[in-house]
Amino acid sequence: MTKKKFIVTPWEVRGEVDYDKLIKQFGTKPIDEGLLNRIKKHAGELHPMLRRGIFYSHRSLNWILSEYEKGNTFYLYTGRGPSGDTHLGHLMPWIFTKYLQDKFKVKLIFQLTDDEKFMIKEDMSLDDAVNYGYENALDVIALGFKPDNTEIFLDTEYIKSLYKLAIKVAKRVTFSTAKAVFGFKNSSNIGIIFFTAVQSAPAFLESERQGKQVPCLIPCAIDQDPHFRVTRDVAPHLGYPKPALIHCKFFPSLLGKEKMSASIPGSSIYTTDSPSEARKKIFNAFTGGKATVEEQKKLGGTPEICSVYQYLSYIFEEDDEKLKEQYAQCKRGELLCGEHKQYLADKVERFLIEHQKKREKAKDRIEEFIIRD
Amino acid sequence: MTKKKFIVTPWEVRGEVDYDKLIKQFGTKPIDEGLLNRIKKHAGELHPMLRRGIFYSHRSLNWILSEYEKGNTFYLYTGRGPSGDTHLGHLMPWIFTKYLQDKFKVKLIFQLTDDEKFMIKEDMSLDDAVNYGYENALDVIALGFKPDNTEIFLDTEYIKSLYKLAIKVAKRVTFSTAKAVFGFKNSSNIGIIFFTAVQSAPAFLESERQGKQVPCLIPCAIDQDPHFRVTRDVAPHLGYPKPALIHCKFFPSLLGKEKMSASIPGSSIYTTDSPSEARKKIFNAFTGGKATVEEQKKLGGTPEICSVYQYLSYIFEEDDEKLKEQYAQCKRGELLCGEHKQYLADKVERFLIEHQKKREKAKDRIEEFIIRD
Repeated sequence: MTKKKFIVTPWEVRGEVDYDKLIKQFGTKPIDEGLLNRIKKHAGELHPMLRRGIFYSHRSLNWILSEYEKGNTFYLYTGRGPSGDTHLGHLMPWIFTKYLQDKFKVKLIFQLTDDEKFMIKEDMSLDDAVNYGYENALDVIALGFKPDNTEIFLDTEYIKSLYKLAIKVAKRVTFSTAKAVFGFKNSSNIGIIFFTAVQSAPAFLESERQGKQVPCLIPCAIDQDPHFRVTRDVAPHLGYPKPALIHCKFFPSLLGKEKMSASIPGSSIYTTDSPSEARKKIFNAFTGGKATVEEQKKLGGTPEICSVYQYLSYIFEEDDEKLKEQYAQCKRGELLCGEHKQYLADKVERFLIEHQKKREKAKDRIEEFIIRD
Repeated sequence: MTKKKFIVTPWEVRGEVDYDKLIKQFGTKPIDEGLLNRIKKHAGELHPMLRRGIFYSHRSLNWILSEYEKGNTFYLYTGRGPSGDTHLGHLMPWIFTKYLQDKFKVKLIFQLTDDEKFMIKEDMSLDDAVNYGYENALDVIALGFKPDNTEIFLDTEYIKSLYKLAIKVAKRVTFSTAKAVFGFKNSSNIGIIFFTAVQSAPAFLESERQGKQVPCLIPCAIDQDPHFRVTRDVAPHLGYPKPALIHCKFFPSLLGKEKMSASIPGSSIYTTDSPSEARKKIFNAFTGGKATVEEQKKLGGTPEICSVYQYLSYIFEEDDEKLKEQYAQCKRGELLCGEHKQYLADKVERFLIEHQKKREKAKDRIEEFIIRD
């Protein structure tokens, strides 16, 4: 069966993504058994997203672990383009980043690219992007990052610290390269063309601050890889180590096989959705069920294409055995979609109630995390 | 006689510039008698650079004067790309800017584009650009600008204040436009493509600070006009007034009809040259003299192409009558080149001794002028 064409850039994910093909296209490496064992050795346990191949691709992760073993501890860098409210898909790499922070006891630098979102979105004002930045920061904090080991900033508020690094990167990146990597057109604005340099800067920030080569590990969704390919190409010219990367797949849409997108209502659950709103979205979700209950009982469902199963698999079912059982029951026609939706909705509801409490508390704690020039 | 081709961009001046043609090419307006009278009415006297057509072109200068007459005082914005030591050519627009500050009692914002020079010059380090920035600032201060009405900054030290304005501009400028205006190539780096947005920002800074429409007047050499054409196109979309411009011609090279260039030794006199170095350069200067003294006495010289005459006309001979007399004497073969060089060298020597004293004193006063985020 030939797969349809797909496109993955930091600003566009279109079509049905073939993740194995993407590894070849982007030139990254799959996370293999050996690497998993190496992580397990240090972390004690593998995060479900590693066990289940959701974080599935990397660059230089072996080097990060070797440096760690030598006592040259890395730091984590990830971020978010604050184009709107946070949805559950955004949380995925952050939850994983929290696992890395806890297990390796390392610093996290979290970038909110308000500048990028303002420049890429025709109708977005800068004030809106800044406001979303602060809103999104609440979700990061609510996940439980350690304030003494976590720095969060908005580009427009921390640009003085980033700018010198950004222009050093920018000097080394031609329009040709940027065009080839990101698919810019003549109609692209000059800000978004420059922006990749601003996204590169935090990968060198700790080296710059400490005046020595500090390894950097970037957990992110794989669509962000093109930015860091540029960063990695430039790094040796500036005397910094190339940042390592660990990439995850995209969180599924509730409505079927597309990247979760804020632009399609009902496709995403927001962290600020009320439990009843979330429940409603889940009950309208696309599943792998059959047309009738009878048919499904007879033929079984298709969890591989089911967003309910994927929601559980990506985030909400931490217990591998239970997940396996649900898969099998679905296949055998014993677990019907309504029941499975109920199961997921209960989990999402519990998560949201808890998260929203922490998010509320985060409002008083934001200054413990935010850094400004 | 057909003139040779010439090219004028902010980063390249090539060929013999036809200034009238440039006005048409760029779409600016010549400064006519009516406008001169209007300036004179407010300034009391016309600066020699206005009387002699050295500041010869403008955009919206009538509007600036109308606003001034209504009591809506403008501010001045000019700058310098700190790619090396200051030479006398750089002083020309600054001397004129000082005249405007004194006569109209207005504020000056002076931008040192260390980011630009670092990004455009392959071999220049950022530290060098920053250092040249501070060196160049000494020359600005030495000219006598009022500290309570003058702000000088380096882009890398004031970027937080500029960045929000810069990205608002950048969002409105496509690569197509930037390419058409500046002649970028695929090999241009993404930093220099973005940079015009950073040069636009100070034109809106006072409006942004004061929360109202503050007119801005930019005195500059005409090669900088393309940047501000972009600024002016974008201004109305951002709710700021279009900055007005007043343009000067290029200071002549001591070696003939080219823009004074730091890249050709002996073509420029630096503000840090010793008087004897300056004298030597003047004695090696290209003039409009004939091959022999006899011939010159018989046929006369050609002051129109003479760098000694131009030096006097652009900066060093403030007395119109004396200048006219020298022109006539040269034409009649009564003023020989050696004698005229002597005359200029004495003036340049006096200027340098005085300037260098003030420049030395400026080292203790720099913090009165420099602003940082």
